Amino acid sequence: MADTEVKKYTEISKLGEFGLIKHLTEKIELLQSSTIKGVGDDAAVIAPPAEGEVMLLSTDMMAEGIHFELTYTPLRHLGYKAIAVNVSDICAMNGTPTQVVVSIAVSNQYSVESLEEIYKGIRFACKEYKVDLVGGDTTSSRSGLVIDVTILGKAKKESVVYRNGAKPGDLLCVSGDLGAAYAGLLLLERARKTVGADPSQKPELQGYGYVLQKQLMPRARVDVVELFNTSDIVPTSMIDISDGLSSEIHHICEASKTGCLLEELKVPIHEETIKVANENGVSPSLFALSGGEDYELLFTLNPADYKKIKDPALLTIIGEILPSEDGIMLAAKDGKMHPLPVQGWDGLRAK
Amino acid sequence: MADTEVKKYTEISKLGEFGLIKHLTEKIELLQSSTIKGVGDDAAVIAPPAEGEVMLLSTDMMAEGIHFELTYTPLRHLGYKAIAVNVSDICAMNGTPTQVVVSIAVSNQYSVESLEEIYKGIRFACKEYKVDLVGGDTTSSRSGLVIDVTILGKAKKESVVYRNGAKPGDLLCVSGDLGAAYAGLLLLERARKTVGADPSQKPELQGYGYVLQKQLMPRARVDVVELFNTSDIVPTSMIDISDGLSSEIHHICEASKTGCLLEELKVPIHEETIKVANENGVSPSLFALSGGEDYELLFTLNPADYKKIKDPALLTIIGEILPSEDGIMLAAKDGKMHPLPVQGWDGLRAK
Repeated sequence: MADTEVKKYTEISKLGEFGLIKHLTEKIELLQSSTIKGVGDDAAVIAPPAEGEVMLLSTDMMAEGIHFELTYTPLRHLGYKAIAVNVSDICAMNGTPTQVVVSIAVSNQYSVESLEEIYKGIRFACKEYKVDLVGGDTTSSRSGLVIDVTILGKAKKESVVYRNGAKPGDLLCVSGDLGAAYAGLLLLERARKTVGADPSQKPELQGYGYVLQKQLMPRARVDVVELFNTSDIVPTSMIDISDGLSSEIHHICEASKTGCLLEELKVPIHEETIKVANENGVSPSLFALSGGEDYELLFTLNPADYKKIKDPALLTIIGEILPSEDGIMLAAKDGKMHPLPVQGWDGLRAK
Repeated sequence: MADTEVKKYTEISKLGEFGLIKHLTEKIELLQSSTIKGVGDDAAVIAPPAEGEVMLLSTDMMAEGIHFELTYTPLRHLGYKAIAVNVSDICAMNGTPTQVVVSIAVSNQYSVESLEEIYKGIRFACKEYKVDLVGGDTTSSRSGLVIDVTILGKAKKESVVYRNGAKPGDLLCVSGDLGAAYAGLLLLERARKTVGADPSQKPELQGYGYVLQKQLMPRARVDVVELFNTSDIVPTSMIDISDGLSSEIHHICEASKTGCLLEELKVPIHEETIKVANENGVSPSLFALSGGEDYELLFTLNPADYKKIKDPALLTIIGEILPSEDGIMLAAKDGKMHPLPVQGWDGLRAK
């Protein structure tokens, strides 16, 4: 054999649907004791949660060209993200994820190896979040790649947190920092255009590891849910930040029938995010308020509960819930008060 | 106003994602007492099943151009079928469906009215099967329509039926009749070609109501599961026929490590199916054995249990489970024995 290694790619059609599913699912490890039967029958069989617990069910679909571009999204990261954004929905209910099913529509032109890459990311995420992959569907598609994940979770009945429980006087809090995922997206889009125009160019992505990671491989904040649990507190309302802080604050206030005061200067923003915003000549706050895809948790706490938190460094107080008649307001860094705009990422609105 | 009514269509982008989801889900009726919170938060909240029951979870994705052609599939029927095929998976475990989540990827060119048609079919099916629609995702797609449904169900722990419980001596049974969905598909494909070649032609579909219905709007056999329950019997193994009888028999025998004898003359075939097969110059048995998409139930019964069945007209005995070493055999109508071929509908295999 010569030095050059010729990598072989296997066409999906060679394995057929059953062969493919068998191939992709044979490496699955089951971690949840509640999984009685995983992949391999008409449905998975799952033991009910413990006495006093309820189940949580959510789904999120990602479509090529809308939620991701394959030109710069590694397939493994894509598989990871498809699971993480669903875990994030369970976190937003103050719950624990337990099982997922994954459906993928993919062009017949894809190789088995590329599907394997997606599944590697899926399995990696399942292990990290201790979620069992118990079923799915793989089908050809005439066109782009579509991944749909449905997740099952559980929570103590009295600890489920909805969007509608915020009360005037509650502290408005957020985990992590905001706007980074959008900063990462901008960098990747810029690199695509640079390299697209002149393939000899190298994309300038060095020194932006944090924001790129937040875009390509966002972490679901299971640690924050765990913190609530160990601190023995329950937020009064919660939502995950998929569409941008402004949009999510509006969701909480509308569901809770309250107003709110958001303090712009208190919104946590990472230094890399600030750098990217400045390079693009826009305010970093705009990234944080309207960027979306951060998958951090936005929640409201009774002030008495805030004092019980064992590791307050995991969260930042960014404002306060007000009575409904006070409106949903932004205290801007110029010292002025404005109504908080509803902007957010909205995949279906014409751009 | 003149006599001609100009129908107005609303672009999806006008409503935006949140407006669209609100619009599509506001008419949902909840029928299951276990649904604590349906659409409208980060996840649905569901009460666990009763003591001694387990949960069932399954998913099925349908993609345009692969599972359906919009040229002849009414959107309402498509919505119905997306739910019914998932209910069928729960039936195949001897369970009762309870909740579904629905994800749809759709081109921005679609009108809100066409999505509404899909949802009308979804709501119709949910009502028929007493299933609550508790969540979903609607996203744009650069290309074709993709519908993914995930279903949650329940069953008594000791009554769950897997594919792997068949024993030599068990009767091999099927509900309804087979091959009709494929006959319907052939008719619709023929009509598409006729009308495509000469739009003044009318497709000849009269007198084929049964097979067309089986293709466009298959019913999940919840009545058969109910019959098992009222007859106080549990099949030893079961699967739903989505890929064709031959393929499903192989699945049961491989999982159960048995052989089988299928008697060709006993396979129930509707007269319309026979007519379409004859018109196409093929044996009706080929439709039944390899057609797929019938969504009937294939199951095995201990002979003592068969006698307990209160309404045997709902099912037909088509063969017997044999020891593994006897192989998976077809007793053909010419009196000869052949190994049963594995053919079935396999959406990913190159045609």
